[in-house]
Amino acid sequence: MIFSATACVLTSAMAAELPVKPTVADLVKQSKADDWRPLDPANTLYLDLPVGRVVIELATDFAPQNAANIKTLVREKYFDGLSMMRSQDNYVAQWGDADEKNPKPLGTAKAKVPGEFTVPASFDKHFVRQQDADGYAPEIGHSKGFPVGRDPKTNTTWVAHCYATVGVARDTDTDSGNGSQLYAITGHAPRHLDRNITAVGRVVSGMELLSSLPRGSEAMGFYGASEAKMPITRVRLAADVPAAERVQLEVMRSEAPIYQQVIEAQRNRGGPWNKYAANYVELCNAPIPVRVRPAL
Amino acid sequence: MIFSATACVLTSAMAAELPVKPTVADLVKQSKADDWRPLDPANTLYLDLPVGRVVIELATDFAPQNAANIKTLVREKYFDGLSMMRSQDNYVAQWGDADEKNPKPLGTAKAKVPGEFTVPASFDKHFVRQQDADGYAPEIGHSKGFPVGRDPKTNTTWVAHCYATVGVARDTDTDSGNGSQLYAITGHAPRHLDRNITAVGRVVSGMELLSSLPRGSEAMGFYGASEAKMPITRVRLAADVPAAERVQLEVMRSEAPIYQQVIEAQRNRGGPWNKYAANYVELCNAPIPVRVRPAL
Repeated sequence: MIFSATACVLTSAMAAELPVKPTVADLVKQSKADDWRPLDPANTLYLDLPVGRVVIELATDFAPQNAANIKTLVREKYFDGLSMMRSQDNYVAQWGDADEKNPKPLGTAKAKVPGEFTVPASFDKHFVRQQDADGYAPEIGHSKGFPVGRDPKTNTTWVAHCYATVGVARDTDTDSGNGSQLYAITGHAPRHLDRNITAVGRVVSGMELLSSLPRGSEAMGFYGASEAKMPITRVRLAADVPAAERVQLEVMRSEAPIYQQVIEAQRNRGGPWNKYAANYVELCNAPIPVRVRPAL
Repeated sequence: MIFSATACVLTSAMAAELPVKPTVADLVKQSKADDWRPLDPANTLYLDLPVGRVVIELATDFAPQNAANIKTLVREKYFDGLSMMRSQDNYVAQWGDADEKNPKPLGTAKAKVPGEFTVPASFDKHFVRQQDADGYAPEIGHSKGFPVGRDPKTNTTWVAHCYATVGVARDTDTDSGNGSQLYAITGHAPRHLDRNITAVGRVVSGMELLSSLPRGSEAMGFYGASEAKMPITRVRLAADVPAAERVQLEVMRSEAPIYQQVIEAQRNRGGPWNKYAANYVELCNAPIPVRVRPAL
């Protein structure tokens, strides 16, 4: 039995305990092998920094043109030797070419890629709706492990700007981004970016390397000319890395029934530590479990 | 005119521009002296770290007993020489006594303080409601610069767990916290903590010093015995610091009409960069402006 909303007026002396329930960690332990899928090497980036590896899964169903251009940049080693450019507290970490005066050539990649702020909902065959209401989207849910918004009236869908979402920085024109500057969300979800900029993927491992970067001292958290900027050792597509050197990560299938239990475990947490069950979970607070693939 | 929800199906070539509107920064510039209030030195803590000062405003209307116990600990220099204990990615940074085996005495402070997870709404005379719907609370708004939830049916109110909210760590018992371990939210708002733990204040300056701490390697982000823990130089009540050494910060009055304009500026952002106005803003995405007091 879940506490009703009236539970919060009980004093601590009066309060009955919430029943113990499986946690997200419990569900991960109970899961079966086919509740998980491996990352697709053709759509996985390794952003290698001196402090470790950031693993990014590209949302190719939601931003096919931008993802393709980023893969071109990566395969031509565009990012190697560039740096982190920006760390704005409670917002984003951004990387790419900090040298505006003498920019690194883009190689065969396109300089302008149309913004893929939304795509037709028909592009996405894997949507599973989350029941919770959301102020930023008529419907929310998950699709292949990405948190997404959806608008049935306009037949559109988009990757939501949650913590760890990766996007394509742009100037004012909607086609002014090309993937040569990317950002990851490091703060409270700035959902007002949804439908305003291309969300192209999600950091599935190594977020703490980006979120703990020192904040930049200039406007919008950009690092100044004299500030140390963490260099990018290299960025590689997992498919271009020898199989033995790839990270063996799996993401819980958002289409698997167990994933709805994961959301429910977060929506209504059990006792004894918890005293009050929210009966709600924001899209960006629904965990998306990632694990190292167990040894066979 | 604000874009309707149908705007998102326009292609970039078709899209009309959103009108230019004042930003939050513009409103801060336009504000008048009496739109701001100084921090009350009797309810302001300085958490001094080797890397700088974190300024915390205590929410004495929402957690009077916990705030009083924290002030006792601070005045008896309990925190001086202790350390940051925990940094869990996308969650919290926590500080206090990392030595469980040989704990530092609490002095005259109480070892157990009743949890103030909610208080009667009558304790709070400054609530201004925010119009947006919220899944975690029947009503949301701001009170003296704190983001709050409110339930008219139960006549309760509480400080919401937004980014920068400071809370009183506890064990399973609701009265097991005493303020000797405090945390600040460094990730996406964990609103499921609302009504489950005592939120006692808010970091108004210096959040980046806490949010950029290296993450701890042990369970829940605790630092291991061998890991470097950032020491706490000292914690002081501003009132106990000579006036000339206090930080001169002001918080925008959440009761001032201009604050509703600030929320609206975030709810519906203007062009030309923005292409789509959300017509919604989450409680924890409503900015609460803080500034250095201008010279007289």
